[in-house]
Amino acid sequence: MPAIIESSVVAEIPGPLSKAAAKQLDSVWDSRAVYFVADYDKSEGNYIVDVDGNKFLDVYSQIASIPVGYNNPALIEAAKSPEMISALVNRPAVGNFPSSQWHDILKNGLLRIHPEGLDKIFTAQSGSEANELAFKAAMMLHRRKERGEGVDWTHEETSSCIENSKPGSPDLAVLSFANSFHGRGFGSLSTTRSKAVHKLDIPSFDWPKATFPALKYPLEKHVEENAAEEKRSLDEVEKLITSWRFPVVALIVEPIQSEGGDNHASPAFFQGLRDLTKKHGVTFIVDEVQTGFGATGKFWGHSHWNLTSPPDIVTFSKKAQTAGYFFGDRQLVPDKAYRQFNTWIGDPARVIMSGAVVREILDKKLVEQTARVGEVLYAELEKLAAKYPEYIKNLRGKGQGTYIAFDTVDSATLVKSMKKLFVNIGTCGVNTVRLRPMLIFEESHIPTLLAALEKVIESMSLIW
Amino acid sequence: MPAIIESSVVAEIPGPLSKAAAKQLDSVWDSRAVYFVADYDKSEGNYIVDVDGNKFLDVYSQIASIPVGYNNPALIEAAKSPEMISALVNRPAVGNFPSSQWHDILKNGLLRIHPEGLDKIFTAQSGSEANELAFKAAMMLHRRKERGEGVDWTHEETSSCIENSKPGSPDLAVLSFANSFHGRGFGSLSTTRSKAVHKLDIPSFDWPKATFPALKYPLEKHVEENAAEEKRSLDEVEKLITSWRFPVVALIVEPIQSEGGDNHASPAFFQGLRDLTKKHGVTFIVDEVQTGFGATGKFWGHSHWNLTSPPDIVTFSKKAQTAGYFFGDRQLVPDKAYRQFNTWIGDPARVIMSGAVVREILDKKLVEQTARVGEVLYAELEKLAAKYPEYIKNLRGKGQGTYIAFDTVDSATLVKSMKKLFVNIGTCGVNTVRLRPMLIFEESHIPTLLAALEKVIESMSLIW
Repeated sequence: MPAIIESSVVAEIPGPLSKAAAKQLDSVWDSRAVYFVADYDKSEGNYIVDVDGNKFLDVYSQIASIPVGYNNPALIEAAKSPEMISALVNRPAVGNFPSSQWHDILKNGLLRIHPEGLDKIFTAQSGSEANELAFKAAMMLHRRKERGEGVDWTHEETSSCIENSKPGSPDLAVLSFANSFHGRGFGSLSTTRSKAVHKLDIPSFDWPKATFPALKYPLEKHVEENAAEEKRSLDEVEKLITSWRFPVVALIVEPIQSEGGDNHASPAFFQGLRDLTKKHGVTFIVDEVQTGFGATGKFWGHSHWNLTSPPDIVTFSKKAQTAGYFFGDRQLVPDKAYRQFNTWIGDPARVIMSGAVVREILDKKLVEQTARVGEVLYAELEKLAAKYPEYIKNLRGKGQGTYIAFDTVDSATLVKSMKKLFVNIGTCGVNTVRLRPMLIFEESHIPTLLAALEKVIESMSLIW
Repeated sequence: MPAIIESSVVAEIPGPLSKAAAKQLDSVWDSRAVYFVADYDKSEGNYIVDVDGNKFLDVYSQIASIPVGYNNPALIEAAKSPEMISALVNRPAVGNFPSSQWHDILKNGLLRIHPEGLDKIFTAQSGSEANELAFKAAMMLHRRKERGEGVDWTHEETSSCIENSKPGSPDLAVLSFANSFHGRGFGSLSTTRSKAVHKLDIPSFDWPKATFPALKYPLEKHVEENAAEEKRSLDEVEKLITSWRFPVVALIVEPIQSEGGDNHASPAFFQGLRDLTKKHGVTFIVDEVQTGFGATGKFWGHSHWNLTSPPDIVTFSKKAQTAGYFFGDRQLVPDKAYRQFNTWIGDPARVIMSGAVVREILDKKLVEQTARVGEVLYAELEKLAAKYPEYIKNLRGKGQGTYIAFDTVDSATLVKSMKKLFVNIGTCGVNTVRLRPMLIFEESHIPTLLAALEKVIESMSLIW
């Protein structure tokens, strides 16, 4: 596959056909966030093609959610399978009337890659929903322990909850970190702390926010400072848990804060969170919506931590092509049926796709590949950073597969210019460029990415 | 198709194979709510088959969400189409990179049946999500008007919202009705008021609840009483809107309260709600998650009302096989992009299915059929109610297609016994039996349903 293909249209991204299509779409749909309109039939592997015929190396991957490439043959096969047709046509309320295949779909799909110690699953449809279901499981568990095993609900509880009043609707908090992103539902949004654009004007719960460690780079030059910073954050977390106005029943954290700027912390920090949450009986939820499914060079981001005991809940979505959460503790199954429930409980069609994704990742050893390619990519970026230290700052993600990011001067301009050189790349945080290639990204794609990046930085340094 | 097929297993529902499959499933999944495990490959049209080979007339339809029958040939065709394969394999972040087909998929699918005056759409993945997106749209609109057109966000607003504090995270309320069901997210659950099992132990927003009119049946015998009751409810709504501790920005109501007991109100009541919400600048959200898509004998439940002006937002899911909301007022599109946004914004694969559902409904005139069949069904049930007035009380849904319900003595026992006679039927409210046949339910299916119902009621009356 050519690195950058020739195109008759280079002057304008989005091109005229993309613009016209977006305008037409806007008559029925809010299309203001459209970068370009894609021709998925012509897209393949790591390359996305737009309606103007422009072909981009895609290291953004539908906001980090395409796992194994456009028009992947194994996924096409799954999409054509008889069980897929049935799941699409006979969409079940899986809680009441699961199909005879449902167990095997889960067992031979998502459960093949369940995080260690977390071998039970609840399916959902988005990362946001998965996180809220995790919060609810934590809340029910907290009240179950408080109530005492086997103690029945009181009339006061069941009647007051209908009024949205205590004691049935208690004040219970989920702790999250500054700059985190956990979704946009009213519960998940209350834990999202990254940007005003997500949160403004929306009522939220009075839940605590801890500051995430602000590490200094390069890490090897700031070992003591960073350790002290992580200690400070852990102390703050413990203080919030023990002093908040009402019980903190869950703590949610991303292995790498992604939307909030690709902020990392050390395994020791996360072990500290595991210890604190265990000590205080707080459900430890690891949000692997963006980090899960291999991009960090391990299947799960939290596997880098070598925790002494697993998280209580791990949520997933994006590259899984479906969503949900894994858990181990059977008490996270509520005391009664129908408490954690909804009509569809996920979508078997999407769970079938996730099974095909898992098979492809394992068969082709794509996590191992990502770890290997990531090392090369990081080393190349390190060289470029040495050449343009103003434009590639705080390079991070070493040893984290292709989950690499850096700060720059004007990330919006950089990614816009990259598109003109046919590389589709994304931003996060304030002025951060995040790489989110698919798991099929190879060494051979690195020169294309690096050449475009260097060209853009050169131009920026020239004209600014 | 035979009315009740012969089966070697009649003694036990769920049968031994269903039980074994549910038990196996429970090792990885909470299977306590499983009625039986289905064999969808053998299910067809109005009939669902379980793994034990039992064949049930299905008037529950996956909690009111199967629109046009199991293994419907037109849906199978859509499931096999090239655009479906692409949507499954190349799942786009439609907000950023919509496919070149996205406009046509919407235009030739869901937008063919948009409610009058509401010709713009936002796609979602569940009714719960659709309702929360509607709340957020209403909240942003309210603050936009308050702020004044074109007035920029203040630093105080953008920084305080990150802290979940005012003024950025304001106290804004959504009014809902007692016994309503609008979903299980933290926002939608705050408006759900039907049962403690959904709400207990989950924090909620301090939002107002009005009592829904409690109509007396038969309607023609209680005209004045019912009118007074509706007036009382409207007065209560207005009082809550004008006196709540903080602004009520939206009111959400189901055309027929479904999960809460199939509670109806008159067109005049809903016109009253439209008038009140207009008068007080409150966004009027009609939750058509269960009533939408034809089962009431009109495509939308609210079409029965002949409102002087349309609702502001109509949400849908279930029989649509996808979810989302329709709206008309362009100001419900937020002032800036990315405020109403998420990674996937629905699922094009499911939106393609919804297009096939719409085509099938329109081509086969299934709404008209449902209106016609519903009249016959209602008349038959009226006769049965006259014979067993203790067991079929408050029959309701006249002129509402097959959206029919009645109160009984012990709804749980009734539906359990109906399964032994191979009719799959559901409950709602406290002791209500709700009929939710598919839109392909015909006059020819009525005798099967009625015979089973009479037999169960006869037995109940004999042994109790």
